[in-house]
Amino acid sequence: MEQQQLYKKIANIVENQIKNGSLTYGDRLPSVRSAQKLYNVSLNTAKSAYMELESRSLIESRPKSGFFVSLAGQRRMSIPSISTFKIDEKKQDPAALIDKVFHSLEDKEITRFSLGLPSPSLLPIQKLNKCILETVHELHDYGDQYGQVQGSPTLRKEIAKWSLVLEGKISDEDLIITSGAMNAIYSCLRAVTKPGYTIAVESPLYFGFIQAFQVLGLKTIEIPTHPITGIELDALKKVIHKIDVCCFVSNFSNPLGALMPDEHKKELVKLLAFHHIPLIEDDLYGNIYFGSSRPKPCKYFDEEGLVMWCGSVTKVLAPSFRIGWVEPGQYKDKILKQRLIQTISQPAIYQEAVAKFLQIGRYDHHLNTFRKKLYSNYINFRNSIEAHFPENTKMSQPEGGFVLWLEMDPKIDSTVLYDYALKQKLSFAPGRMFTQHDQFKNCIRLNYAVDWNEKTANDLMRLGRFFKAVI
Amino acid sequence: MEQQQLYKKIANIVENQIKNGSLTYGDRLPSVRSAQKLYNVSLNTAKSAYMELESRSLIESRPKSGFFVSLAGQRRMSIPSISTFKIDEKKQDPAALIDKVFHSLEDKEITRFSLGLPSPSLLPIQKLNKCILETVHELHDYGDQYGQVQGSPTLRKEIAKWSLVLEGKISDEDLIITSGAMNAIYSCLRAVTKPGYTIAVESPLYFGFIQAFQVLGLKTIEIPTHPITGIELDALKKVIHKIDVCCFVSNFSNPLGALMPDEHKKELVKLLAFHHIPLIEDDLYGNIYFGSSRPKPCKYFDEEGLVMWCGSVTKVLAPSFRIGWVEPGQYKDKILKQRLIQTISQPAIYQEAVAKFLQIGRYDHHLNTFRKKLYSNYINFRNSIEAHFPENTKMSQPEGGFVLWLEMDPKIDSTVLYDYALKQKLSFAPGRMFTQHDQFKNCIRLNYAVDWNEKTANDLMRLGRFFKAVI
Repeated sequence: MEQQQLYKKIANIVENQIKNGSLTYGDRLPSVRSAQKLYNVSLNTAKSAYMELESRSLIESRPKSGFFVSLAGQRRMSIPSISTFKIDEKKQDPAALIDKVFHSLEDKEITRFSLGLPSPSLLPIQKLNKCILETVHELHDYGDQYGQVQGSPTLRKEIAKWSLVLEGKISDEDLIITSGAMNAIYSCLRAVTKPGYTIAVESPLYFGFIQAFQVLGLKTIEIPTHPITGIELDALKKVIHKIDVCCFVSNFSNPLGALMPDEHKKELVKLLAFHHIPLIEDDLYGNIYFGSSRPKPCKYFDEEGLVMWCGSVTKVLAPSFRIGWVEPGQYKDKILKQRLIQTISQPAIYQEAVAKFLQIGRYDHHLNTFRKKLYSNYINFRNSIEAHFPENTKMSQPEGGFVLWLEMDPKIDSTVLYDYALKQKLSFAPGRMFTQHDQFKNCIRLNYAVDWNEKTANDLMRLGRFFKAVI
Repeated sequence: MEQQQLYKKIANIVENQIKNGSLTYGDRLPSVRSAQKLYNVSLNTAKSAYMELESRSLIESRPKSGFFVSLAGQRRMSIPSISTFKIDEKKQDPAALIDKVFHSLEDKEITRFSLGLPSPSLLPIQKLNKCILETVHELHDYGDQYGQVQGSPTLRKEIAKWSLVLEGKISDEDLIITSGAMNAIYSCLRAVTKPGYTIAVESPLYFGFIQAFQVLGLKTIEIPTHPITGIELDALKKVIHKIDVCCFVSNFSNPLGALMPDEHKKELVKLLAFHHIPLIEDDLYGNIYFGSSRPKPCKYFDEEGLVMWCGSVTKVLAPSFRIGWVEPGQYKDKILKQRLIQTISQPAIYQEAVAKFLQIGRYDHHLNTFRKKLYSNYINFRNSIEAHFPENTKMSQPEGGFVLWLEMDPKIDSTVLYDYALKQKLSFAPGRMFTQHDQFKNCIRLNYAVDWNEKTANDLMRLGRFFKAVI
């Protein structure tokens, strides 16, 4: 244990040197033996520290030359711009574009950087299958009765137990199981809005929300959003008198990957409490963090019960299971009523299988592996984008999740280029999908929760060259 | 085969004699040997015919005396009254009563005549379990992708195939899979209504609808409904100018068990087409008929695509599977949009397991057994109610489904009596649950999809005596 911490400590020291610029791309690191002496540790510890740095893609070994700071360690690209208010501009929902992108994904030969889901190979499918089989064998009467409207008590207990980040502030009695996070959001919206209500959202935002808000007759105000810190609170304050409800992805938003700092979350919750505005918090990426600990949700700072905290296993375990949940604050009865009239109850098998997966501790193990894999993919993507995409490309710096947001030359229209890329069996999510206004046309979203192999590497390079060629 | 038909023919002849009154309660039938000669058949055939009549509860054997016409063959009780318009009367949704009835059912010692689901013992749980297991073994990638918004293509094909009653008028392309019939109805309502719209419904009606309409902000007009033939078309015509949408259970409505005759359905569809009013048709009991053939839904007569035909496996296979569907007529796109924003897609296992159950022909076999059992239960209930309930009790005459509607002495208040019956471990559904107005307090709904055994028989008798004692 002691030794393990030591090698990580050294790796962290070197990482900091790289990040603060005392070591830059191409710099040679001390040899392992020098490092051993330098840090006064065993040879093994020094070796482990360098291996750790390699696994973080911060350094690379060159045969017979030693270790060098890799390109990945360097911040070369600047971050995308902060979006601005477009309140007075004409709205046009990107329905047709969303439809097109979805339908074109049916061709399995296309490399789907456009997808919003992890590649199956990164998910614990086999282990989940086993849980399903065990559940089916154990359940005897799962077909003959409605389950509880609130969802399986076992699953609710497990989710409450795993919500460590909330430090015991929620219990199984509070949670409501839903058909995925989307259904949690939908049920919250139905509980606290009426047609004509105004909802504040991030900008860019997940296109599924745009569709839902439109169908529910809500007016949407896209709040300027910082690619690193999320919603701009000062901007929100300017329009707060117009807002009836907020819906934010506070941890690793989609598509920006922004993470609201704790102080922002605290201030946001306070602001909303002052104005009695409910917040639907979609925290479905919170467990996929690259940092040292799971970021807190706004829910953590909520004292009034105005925050409806939504989550799901969709992005980390199994998209098609449709298991999500919401901690509904003061809106529990309203949301239960919505669930009841939507479908009375939810089928048992998936709920019990997920409960089992959490119970036997496979969740933690999977998340650890998954996070490492995603971080390594992120670095690989960053390296490739820096090397092969147009020089003036700006790139988000997610500290979790699995999407990258690229802002490219203003000449680029990714909506139009989408069709051309498709012909080359490449896909990306055009920026225009993520807004109701005429913006982000020079942006794209890429999914790095893929198998990083020769083909993927080559396809990403091809995509970069494709954009270069356009300019 | 030939012999089987023969004994049924004879049984039918005798049944007709009983029904038209040429044989009445207590009449002695010819001995088996006499019947053999009378009908010029084998001794076995004559025996089988009498056994068939016994299984229909039309005759009973008395030891050493022979066979006699039983009480069941006689129509003694009159049918409940036709409901009347209460448009101008104050509305009060029975939410508290519904809640109470649901919560009190948690005590497993209570005989739950109040329940709206068949007893597990009447459902093919074991066979469905097998289908689930086979499905889990066969599906390899069921966790890693969203399914189609419209639902599993395999299941849609099977449902289209099994919708024989529509004579090929629908295809798998038309159907949308939902989370049970309730979700089908909900999605239809969301697709064609806005808060403030007025919806025409039966009276009494399924309390789940009352809850849904209330939450969705719809105004409900309860249309006078005949216990045998359903919605009174003349009454509907009187208020048709106020109606935005209709929601009817045309086959074996709940709780009345009414079955609209074909001519009524035809006229209804024509009327609604003339006024461009959509009809949400909940046909979830249609396959549980006691007559010679499956009654047609209104959908069959629909040429404009105004009828949204909803169904599910909830009442005949497995309540908790939450598998339903809708043939959405001209509203397909709108309903798909609703499904998408509700939950994106539905999990695979239950859909594929039900598809498998339909595919291998177990559905037909199960329905045959289930129908026979229900019919026999119905006769047993009728006999017991005639024998043990107050003299002036009126009783519905369902030709399918599994609920009975009793109208009792006006002095009876079933809402109040519910609590007293509960203390005797008996439950029924108070009539007040099935309306938004102050009516049906002297009515109750009983579920006869139960195990008919000594205990049930005794409990039903106790319930009858309970009401008798009150009067």
